[in-house]
Amino acid sequence: MGTPLSRSAADVLTSVDLVALTPGTPAFVAAVEQVLTEFFASRREIVEPLGPVFVDAAEALEQFVVRGGKRTRPGFAWTGWLGAGGDPSAPEAASVLTACAALELVQACALVHDDIIDSSRTRRGFPTVHIDFTDRHRTAGWSGDGEAYGSAVAILIGDLALAWADDLVNAAGLDTASFARFAPVWARMRTEVLGGQLLDINGEAGGDESVEAALRINRYKTAAYTIERPLHLGAALAGADDALVAALRTYGTDVGIAFQLRDDLLGVFGDPAVTGKPSGDDLREGKRTVLIAEALRRADPESAALIRTGLGTDLDDEAVDRLRAVLIDLGAVDDVERRITELTETGLAAIAHSAATPAAKHLLHDMALAATRRTA
Amino acid sequence: MGTPLSRSAADVLTSVDLVALTPGTPAFVAAVEQVLTEFFASRREIVEPLGPVFVDAAEALEQFVVRGGKRTRPGFAWTGWLGAGGDPSAPEAASVLTACAALELVQACALVHDDIIDSSRTRRGFPTVHIDFTDRHRTAGWSGDGEAYGSAVAILIGDLALAWADDLVNAAGLDTASFARFAPVWARMRTEVLGGQLLDINGEAGGDESVEAALRINRYKTAAYTIERPLHLGAALAGADDALVAALRTYGTDVGIAFQLRDDLLGVFGDPAVTGKPSGDDLREGKRTVLIAEALRRADPESAALIRTGLGTDLDDEAVDRLRAVLIDLGAVDDVERRITELTETGLAAIAHSAATPAAKHLLHDMALAATRRTA
Repeated sequence: MGTPLSRSAADVLTSVDLVALTPGTPAFVAAVEQVLTEFFASRREIVEPLGPVFVDAAEALEQFVVRGGKRTRPGFAWTGWLGAGGDPSAPEAASVLTACAALELVQACALVHDDIIDSSRTRRGFPTVHIDFTDRHRTAGWSGDGEAYGSAVAILIGDLALAWADDLVNAAGLDTASFARFAPVWARMRTEVLGGQLLDINGEAGGDESVEAALRINRYKTAAYTIERPLHLGAALAGADDALVAALRTYGTDVGIAFQLRDDLLGVFGDPAVTGKPSGDDLREGKRTVLIAEALRRADPESAALIRTGLGTDLDDEAVDRLRAVLIDLGAVDDVERRITELTETGLAAIAHSAATPAAKHLLHDMALAATRRTA
Repeated sequence: MGTPLSRSAADVLTSVDLVALTPGTPAFVAAVEQVLTEFFASRREIVEPLGPVFVDAAEALEQFVVRGGKRTRPGFAWTGWLGAGGDPSAPEAASVLTACAALELVQACALVHDDIIDSSRTRRGFPTVHIDFTDRHRTAGWSGDGEAYGSAVAILIGDLALAWADDLVNAAGLDTASFARFAPVWARMRTEVLGGQLLDINGEAGGDESVEAALRINRYKTAAYTIERPLHLGAALAGADDALVAALRTYGTDVGIAFQLRDDLLGVFGDPAVTGKPSGDDLREGKRTVLIAEALRRADPESAALIRTGLGTDLDDEAVDRLRAVLIDLGAVDDVERRITELTETGLAAIAHSAATPAAKHLLHDMALAATRRTA
């Protein structure tokens, strides 16, 4: 019965020098991936008795997770823990890194389900999970609706990721007091990201098109989930006091929103050679960003009509240029640039005046500039 | 930061006499619903800052969960705990009941997502969640695809239920040792039910149509999830030894499969006046049950063709009767009845020879007969 189902976090990470681990570096990415790979291996004894169909699905999830980028969320969580005085040479460090890595499984659920919701066909250069299983259905020559099958499998694979996120936390070996500090923040984080996604699809369906509504989506879908709560989780694990938690959360919210605002600008004005996405792609997709909301707020009826009729349609390059000019002329671009600057400053100020460790302050400073001044 | 986000389980249940609580009774159902209602109330402080759209979604989930029937899974978990010597007058009893109630949130996720996958329009006499939100989209006169919107919201609401299941467990106040025994079983249970659903949709898409494949779906989608693992969870909380856990799991697997086999027979032969479903509904839906698999195994090419071409089509009453006759003549009905009898006997024998408490043995005996001899 009560078998732990996984080697302890400390065993998995014996070969990793946690003291030298810096978020964003290849070594950090490798350490997170080692935790995840080991966790997936530990699931096999539950998955295999159900047969090859389920084994295939679990492997599809593993490939999806292992393919995943920079490990931004575990990076912020680890930084929050270090910044609040967490000791990477202490025995609990491996458990902390394991709990941080679980954020990648929540992210896997969010992405797999989001891709169904947005009918996205590719992700990170590969077919999305629902497209992958739609293809498998066709290849097998099965009966019935292949797209419905693909979506059904992807719903279940996303669910599996979400359940396994909690299983990884539970298997991390956190001590009781740490777990008790971690769990309520973890609860808020998971609920907030689901709420943020809901606000997003609601906004697209035609709800509130105000600047405030767009900012709220940024806050919960991106900022809280990507920076604020990961930092908060790490700080909670280290037993940070309320003042430090508040400073980290201010930084996370402000820099997180600024990060998304930069993303919004790049989605309209970014250089395709740098972003890897077609120029003006967000305009064609009809994304309801703060940039668009601000432009609509400032627009006379004629400009507003131009924006509303153009957004979400198959715009040619000339039409993209025309819309860009409208956004600039209305002052919406300047407004968003001003917000990015202000939010980055308030975020950095909160950290500067906090009791975070000097090393973490330095790291958070660099992470803020990387997130808000990037070109891709 | 580390606010518990809910009153402790003991506070919530002060007015409930846990010693007298018997699964299946209105008092038990009311106690589980009290835990769930109080938990939903505790989520409001996380949900409300995101605004009315998310509040509406959380309320839709709450209504769905509170509407939910007999609380079968918490009932088996509570029985497992009592049967392994859990003391309902002890202070931890309220925490145990809270953890048992969390099974209803896993079930909410399974049903909400299953209804999307099966394109079901009603559940418990109400519109399914995705249909409800499709209707809301239409009523609001929003732009875009209302059905896609409904499915998207229902995906997120199911995710919320799954995340909240773990949050309720984490907030239950289990002591460290109990939690450590509970978590690995909880992990298996969540993974197995998702795997069972996956096998089910795969079977429908045209995978393996053997008796073994159909039995495996029954085992993981129904038996493990409804009886075996709930009993196991309860027993683990009480610190049961391996022999008792094995007996409870044998009972849960055998009686759980027998329960599903009875369901399969009722889906084809049940009296509509008693089951509340149109006669022969499972034949029209084309469900790939053990009954069908056994019939196909026994059939000559002519009978097999009759079954395969009829299943999943809009059969009239005469065609339903013809198919029923084929299933009977092939001996498939007798075979399934024999399986039900044998599985019920092996399940009951395992309990009879176990160290479970006499009260639990009595209860499990009655529950087995209720599950396998019912007419609706």
